[in-house]
Formats: sequence, C-alpha cells, structure tokens
Amino acid sequence: MTDLILRHVRPMGAAVTDLAVAGGRFAETAPAGAEVIDCGGRILIPGLVEAHTHLDKSLLGLPWYRNEVGPRLIDKITNEREVKVSLGLHPQVQSERQAIQSVGYGTTHIRSHVDVDTHHGLAGVEGVMATREKLAGLVEIEIVAFPQSGMITRPGTVELMDAALEMGVEVVGGLDPCGIDRDPRAHLDAIFGLAEKHGKPVDIHLHEQGALGWFSMEEILTRTRAHGMQGKVTVSHAFCLGAPERAQVTALQEQMAEERIHVVTTAPAATTVPAVKELRAAGILTGSGSDGIRDTWGPYGNGDMLERAMFIGLRNNLRRDDEVELALHICTQGGAEIMEIEGYGIAPGCLADAVLVEGETLAEAVASRAPRKLVLKGGRVTARDGLCVVAAP
Amino acid sequence: MTDLILRHVRPMGAAVTDLAVAGGRFAETAPAGAEVIDCGGRILIPGLVEAHTHLDKSLLGLPWYRNEVGPRLIDKITNEREVKVSLGLHPQVQSERQAIQSVGYGTTHIRSHVDVDTHHGLAGVEGVMATREKLAGLVEIEIVAFPQSGMITRPGTVELMDAALEMGVEVVGGLDPCGIDRDPRAHLDAIFGLAEKHGKPVDIHLHEQGALGWFSMEEILTRTRAHGMQGKVTVSHAFCLGAPERAQVTALQEQMAEERIHVVTTAPAATTVPAVKELRAAGILTGSGSDGIRDTWGPYGNGDMLERAMFIGLRNNLRRDDEVELALHICTQGGAEIMEIEGYGIAPGCLADAVLVEGETLAEAVASRAPRKLVLKGGRVTARDGLCVVAAP
Repeated sequence: MTDLILRHVRPMGAAVTDLAVAGGRFAETAPAGAEVIDCGGRILIPGLVEAHTHLDKSLLGLPWYRNEVGPRLIDKITNEREVKVSLGLHPQVQSERQAIQSVGYGTTHIRSHVDVDTHHGLAGVEGVMATREKLAGLVEIEIVAFPQSGMITRPGTVELMDAALEMGVEVVGGLDPCGIDRDPRAHLDAIFGLAEKHGKPVDIHLHEQGALGWFSMEEILTRTRAHGMQGKVTVSHAFCLGAPERAQVTALQEQMAEERIHVVTTAPAATTVPAVKELRAAGILTGSGSDGIRDTWGPYGNGDMLERAMFIGLRNNLRRDDEVELALHICTQGGAEIMEIEGYGIAPGCLADAVLVEGETLAEAVASRAPRKLVLKGGRVTARDGLCVVAAP
Repeated sequence: MTDLILRHVRPMGAAVTDLAVAGGRFAETAPAGAEVIDCGGRILIPGLVEAHTHLDKSLLGLPWYRNEVGPRLIDKITNEREVKVSLGLHPQVQSERQAIQSVGYGTTHIRSHVDVDTHHGLAGVEGVMATREKLAGLVEIEIVAFPQSGMITRPGTVELMDAALEMGVEVVGGLDPCGIDRDPRAHLDAIFGLAEKHGKPVDIHLHEQGALGWFSMEEILTRTRAHGMQGKVTVSHAFCLGAPERAQVTALQEQMAEERIHVVTTAPAATTVPAVKELRAAGILTGSGSDGIRDTWGPYGNGDMLERAMFIGLRNNLRRDDEVELALHICTQGGAEIMEIEGYGIAPGCLADAVLVEGETLAEAVASRAPRKLVLKGGRVTARDGLCVVAAP
C-alpha cells in the first residue's frame, strides 16, 4: 500500500493537517481507498539521512566484544583487520543488522563507507551490496569504496577500488592522504583518477589535525578544481576545520565553498570538529552520520540520527530552538543534498520517505529522541514504535 | 518489603548468583519469607549517583520553552531569573518531576545546587526541601545553596545563604569568583566563612577557562589549606583543567590531590573539560552529574546517569572496556565518595540501593543505556522497566 492519508499530522512542527500520499509520493490528494493512518498530532519530518557510517564493521548481534585495543589510529586499523578474521565477521549479515536497526530509528537513506583492502578484497562491498538488494524498498544504501588500510602502501588496493566501482559502488573513498599512505600526492591522484575514470563523486575521511589537515584540504581543493569536480567532493570529519586558528580556517572554508566541497561531521566530543554554524554561514553543505556503530573501534553508537542531531547540538553548543533545528536539518536535508537524493522532502511530489517524531517542537524531538511511532519509505510503512517491520538476522 | 532475594543476578557483571537483602541492606542471607525477585541474569550495580544537577530549574512537564536566549553566561542567568517569574515556575513541583524521572533511570542519590538570590529568596530551597521530604525512601537529595546570580554584587545574598544553611542545606555553593562577582577574594572568603561557621562542605561551580580558572583554583586551594577543609571541597565543571597547557594543569592537579579537592564533571562537548583518566592517575576523586535538565539554559538532558557515563566516555575518548568502566565508576562510586554516602555499594552490609542494567558487560550497559528493569532504594522497589513507582505531578 503506497497510497495513504496521514491524518492529524504536523509537517515540520506546523499546525495539524492531513497529508496525502499517492503512488509512494506526497500528493495533493490520495486515491480513493487509500489507507488512513492517524498520526495523533505528531510531527512529520523527511526520512533521516545517515550520511556516514560503516555498515560492514558493526558487531551488532554478536557477543560483546571486549575492547583492549591500543590508542593509535594504526592500532585500531590493524586490530580490526585481524579481528574480522578471528570473529568470522560477515559483512552481509552485519550490514543487514545495522541497516534494519537504523530503519527503526527513522533512517531512509544510508551512505556507507565499506572497507576495500588486499586482506579482505571485495568481500565487504559484496556483502553490503547483497544487503542493499535484500532491503530494497526499506532503505536506500549508497556505497563508498573505502581504502581503510591505505592504498599506496598496499599495492593492489587501487585495482580493487577500480573493481568495486565497476561493480556499481557509487562513491570513491579516501583516507588521511598524509597520515596513512604518507604520500598525499599519490593517494589523492589515485582517488581523483578513479573518480574521473568512473564519473563518480568522492568522499574522503580526513582526520588529520591542524596544519596537516589544511595541507591535505588544499590538495583536495587543487584537484577538485583541476578535475572540474565542484559539488562532487565531500570531506568527512574534517577535524582540521575545528582548529583554534580561526582566520586560517575561515580562509580555507571560503575556498571550499567556492569549489562546493561538502562536509560530513559526526560531531565527536573528543577532538576538534568543524563548526556547523560557520559552515552554514560560509555556504558549505553539511551532513552527518553515526560513523562506526558498536565495532572494534569503540562500543558506542546506535544509528539514531535524532541522537546524532543532539550530539551536533551538544558539540556545537546549539541551545536556541533555531540552532537545534539546524542540527536536525544537517541530519535530514543536509545529507540528502550531499547524496543528491532525488525527490527528498515532504512537499507534494516528493517521495514519501518520512518519519513521525515525538514532541511539541522540532527541538523537543531532538532533545527527547523518543521511539519513532512510524517510518515510511516510498509510502510503505517500514517501522512502527521504534522497530523495523523486518526482523534482523 | 525490604527483605529480598535477588535471584539470578550478576553483581557488577560477575557470574550469575543470588543476593540477599535483609532490613534494607545487602546481607549474607535473607530472612524467611523474603520476597524473591528473578533478575533474569541481569547485571546489578549500586544506585546511580547524580552529583550535580539543578532540581529547581527544570521545565519538565511544562509546555515546550522556546529558547531564544543570548550567547553570554550573563544572558542566561538574567533570562532565567525573569522567566522563573513569567512561567510561574514552582521549585517544589519541578524538583519532584525531575527527581522522579531520575529514579526511573536508576538514580538513588542526588546532589542538587539550588538557586539562592535576592529575587527569589529561599523559595527554591524550600521547594526542593519539600520534595526531598515527599520523596524520602525513593531517593536521597542533598542540597547545595547556590548563589547563581552572584553574592557580593547583590547585597543580602550572603545572609540568604546563611539562612539556607540554618534551614538544613548541606553544602555551601559558589560560582566563578572572578567571572560573576568580579571580586574573587570577597566571594571565596564569604563561601569559606559560611562553611566554617556551619561546619559544611563546599561545592563551587568553576566555568572560568584557562589562566583565569587556574587563578581561582589557586585561591580555592589557599583557603582549603587555611580552613583545614581537606576532603571537604568540590569544584564542579573545572573547565580550566582541560586547558591545553598540560604542564601547568598537572602541577595544579597535584596540589588539588594534596588538599583532597574533588572534581565533578558533566563532560560537556563544547568546552574544555578535566581529563578523567588524569584525575584518576592524580588521585583526585571524580563524580558526575546531568547539570541542568531541559531548562532555560538549554533543551538537553534527561537525568540518565548511564547516558552521562557515555558522555564522559565520548568526551574523554574512552573506548576500551576498562575505560568505559571508569566512566561508570565516576557515575556511581565516585559521586558517592564525594557525597560521603554511608553504606554505598553492593557488598553485604551496604544499603540495598541498586539498579539492574541491561547488557553482557558493564561497558555494554553504558553503550546501550536500555531502560532499567528494576531500581531498589533500601531494598524497596522504586522503579520498574524505566518508570518510577510513583507518578510525577
């Protein structure tokens, strides 16, 4: 049933009204016989957008993993590569578990970075591809080929990335051009080369702090210009934009805005982060995501993008209602624009991908993060009372 | 009924066993006829300790408050003083609402700072005192007389603080000796004078950053020595201990450890914060709290001290299981030691103040923050499935 009347609903917190869905899209009127759903005066927002996660890595559904990993980035990368084998981690099963949990929280779209390395080859990509096929109609999954273990220092990885893109992966990933491969030129040339060859956008993890991160960002800017990839490059994390030297950061952000480079922030509390109000003022599209959820990197995370909006609010000191609404906008519209989702929104003509949230206002919905009464994907009910209609494996 | 057998329980995540409660305390054996509660193999931890909140300020249960407050600390203080009147905020009702919500999350002890000012006099203290009497047996509430609007710049406040202590308030509060009163000497002399006069401990809000905060901390140290108040002084927030100049901070922390000054951190994400692992290494007792919950300062917070443990973990980059357990320790034992709670713990002889949490391990309990199956206070069941047995007004 994708013809609906959503009765007693408050679109984006506005006054109570009825909304029609016809053929899976919001419409002026619904066909005769459309199912009527009483929304009890709840707020309707467009589907939450998980614009940065790692579906292949989650340990959801497995016995508790006791984390005793060392403190460095490379400790975590090495540990994970080994633990995937020792636990027999199955990317298809794990990605299905996480995606189904996300649907329960009201997520309708996911961009997942998926590891590509010479150890596991394309097993991760194949697994997540199987999940996205299995869950078609419940949630849309976009895949980024992600060279987590480095590309240049591990010969064969670029070829694997190339093969992943041939298979239908939508986005070229990358990672700390200086910090991991220790060869920023070769790393970035490889990524932008793959992007050009396949006509795909880029989404690069950039954890590098301060001046090192600025250097990598400048190199990304240079290649964005050279390849004419304005609007097609996303930098995830971009911790260097949170550096205390605001004049330098502002100058960099101005260039990023000019080349229409997007930022995805997970708003972590323990590092410098981009300031979302500054990004908005600069005109830089901003999305958000959960990053890893209960994996070998850390125990936290649940896929709730309303909770993520709260994290953005807490990290950016957003207290006023209009500021909290910005955090929510980042977790909905912001991610949707970065992922170029067609027909996103709750206006007539848009796909009926939407979620009922609790509270008197949008800010209360974020602050309370109560279970979602109803989630729709193309007008189909995909979750009720916080639970996806499909059980996890 | 305060005689119990807790069947199939895992104390602090250890192997499944049975625990006995006799006369409201954990015991080797329970009297004949004790009620048997099947704990389903869940983990039992001692009651969560909310060591820093503001029970009189919460807007819980009221229509949504649209926050349009300015960015400065003084904007928030002034706005709140006025809004309390315009909303007709009732400290007794509001504190009861928040305390009951906290019980549902497994909190058994609360230290609440309560505003004392020349505008509202002792209405806040009287209200929270009425609540603590009403909720006796459900949760213990300790009150800090808190000069939120300043003490020296508002003549009459010291006298009100004095009267509050006469009435039975347990702790002398204070606030940014430089930042608010702009007279650190007079502010701190007044506080320590009151503490000496009434033989009460001190708990001072210190938001002052960097060198300003260090200066105030040094002045607190001086007075702690002079008044022989070792072990009786808590500094809440202590943002200055999160300053990047670690050598200076380390030197200060060594002095704090010597004078047995405690720290309470709410682990906010948008400012510098004390590093909890460093505090532990230095031997400084550390507790935590929710701070304001859904008040005129901001929309966030719910009183869940397991969630607070997660915030401590996220802010301090605690990922390993032993590190997450430290965060939980701060939200239980740490606060209990600071508040000098008699008989705290789950060993035989301790008061049966405890909570069942979900998960295979303590770290999972923190990461998942699932509703609490059961909360006990002196062996009495005070909450089930996340809800206090008493309804909020």
